[in-house]
Amino acid sequence: MLVIWLTGISGAGKTTIANALSVELSKKKILHEVLDGDEYRAVLSPNDGFSMKERDNFRLKIISIAKLLTRNNILCIIPVLSSSRSNRKLARNEFSDFMEIYIKCPIEICERRDPKGHYKKVRSGKLKDFVGVDLPYEEPLNPEIIIESDVLTVSESVNKILKELGHNFPDIFH
Amino acid sequence: MLVIWLTGISGAGKTTIANALSVELSKKKILHEVLDGDEYRAVLSPNDGFSMKERDNFRLKIISIAKLLTRNNILCIIPVLSSSRSNRKLARNEFSDFMEIYIKCPIEICERRDPKGHYKKVRSGKLKDFVGVDLPYEEPLNPEIIIESDVLTVSESVNKILKELGHNFPDIFH
Repeated sequence: MLVIWLTGISGAGKTTIANALSVELSKKKILHEVLDGDEYRAVLSPNDGFSMKERDNFRLKIISIAKLLTRNNILCIIPVLSSSRSNRKLARNEFSDFMEIYIKCPIEICERRDPKGHYKKVRSGKLKDFVGVDLPYEEPLNPEIIIESDVLTVSESVNKILKELGHNFPDIFH
Repeated sequence: MLVIWLTGISGAGKTTIANALSVELSKKKILHEVLDGDEYRAVLSPNDGFSMKERDNFRLKIISIAKLLTRNNILCIIPVLSSSRSNRKLARNEFSDFMEIYIKCPIEICERRDPKGHYKKVRSGKLKDFVGVDLPYEEPLNPEIIIESDVLTVSESVNKILKELGHNFPDIFH
């Protein structure tokens, strides 16, 4: 079963779009789970920080859970920052069906949104190793879908994603 | 969906019986996963030791995965040592359908089997905090099933479990 991997910097709208997409999949009676980075990090990596090594470990845990689910025919929507191209490729290689969706948004707008107050903490020096500020975010070169979340509404974003999914996986999204 | 929780000291036969049970569920086309403690510990808690706190954290991770699976109608077989009554009760409280199976075996026999060489390490002082030796294992007081793995063969154990499951969950094990 398919993995839908949403990547993008903090505040781009990954979780919002993932949850809105989830609502539509529920309407279509497509069995799925949203493995949200923030939510599962609290359970799976309660003592970890955000170093590259710790991020790698966390991503491996999420991948291992997604394997359990997808092999039981449960689609996985995975909104996680996943800043490096090589690591997103590693994730992709673990699954036969994988759609990478780049939730693209200028950092100035993400910082203005700042839904979790992270940027404020970064600018005041309370939070370090922040992707997009201290650490690089490597934009996807060939994602299956790009969503410009400063241009499209959430609803338009979900419609665009569903259309692409329908083209690529007609058996699932009929 | 049901969680089958196998508890018992190291070497009692939890993994062996879980895997043999899995074979039978596959024959019956019952969707399920075995969440083996040793296997998932390597992925979910790669840097953790075996202190009570670290064991607690690991068990919470396994429970969180089992919730994802069971709410999608996938039965979970969970062979984990889980030494304390209160913690097994915490696990039980997380699920509407829960069967606790006590894989019971005298420690002398577990030590003779020593499938992972743990007891050897414990006796030579290379391994500490070992349940059954340094730390207590609290025997279940009212498990749904008791399997005396020094008396029954693996096949007899699985048959006994299937019979009990059939009584308690006729809709699943028809």
